[in-house]
Amino acid sequence: MIELDFEKTGGLIPAIVQDAASGQILMLAYMNQAAFEKTLETKKATYYSRSRDMLWTKGETSGHAQHVKEIRVDCDLDTVVLKVEQAGKGACHKGYKSCFYRAVYGDELKIADPQVFDPEKVYK
Amino acid sequence: MIELDFEKTGGLIPAIVQDAASGQILMLAYMNQAAFEKTLETKKATYYSRSRDMLWTKGETSGHAQHVKEIRVDCDLDTVVLKVEQAGKGACHKGYKSCFYRAVYGDELKIADPQVFDPEKVYK
Repeated sequence: MIELDFEKTGGLIPAIVQDAASGQILMLAYMNQAAFEKTLETKKATYYSRSRDMLWTKGETSGHAQHVKEIRVDCDLDTVVLKVEQAGKGACHKGYKSCFYRAVYGDELKIADPQVFDPEKVYK
Repeated sequence: MIELDFEKTGGLIPAIVQDAASGQILMLAYMNQAAFEKTLETKKATYYSRSRDMLWTKGETSGHAQHVKEIRVDCDLDTVVLKVEQAGKGACHKGYKSCFYRAVYGDELKIADPQVFDPEKVYK
């Protein structure tokens, strides 16, 4: 039984999602104990949605599921890394491979990655 | 001026720290507005310590500073990725390159990376 420290952060821990092949960081989401256990059981990344107050399995709407190849846990037992195979063209609901598609240039943000799909066709 | 959404999460946002050269995820820490601005200004990763309730620049005690090469920001403006050059042998206060040195194997955690320094000699 793996015991993570969900208490310290009020029940939710951050899950960093990394492309297993390229190492690119795709997104960050949150997990409660139930989301973590469902992810372990199904090998499909499942998170806790703070805005919808419910579990969500990535890809339910978009088809862009994340197949979990490896899970790493940090020294404080309060953050995880999921190394995943990302289905579809990207993880971000804005149409990018990664949610981190903007970079800091001086005192502004600029888009640094190409958009790879039309979010209006995927998230209906 | 870059405006991140510190309010949604009560003043602190997660900062994922990634080795700029290898793509390895080194750690996760938290930033408030002041930590983010100090990091932008100095290019040395500076975080907010929840346990000590103060800003801390990584490496002050250990010498293991993080020189920031690039900052990425996510679609919701509430998480950042720092791509860094990690000084010294590692980022983790337990003596590993990465805080994520343990992996899930079945229903237990196992150490998956080599220890690269003696933490008792570095954190005195």
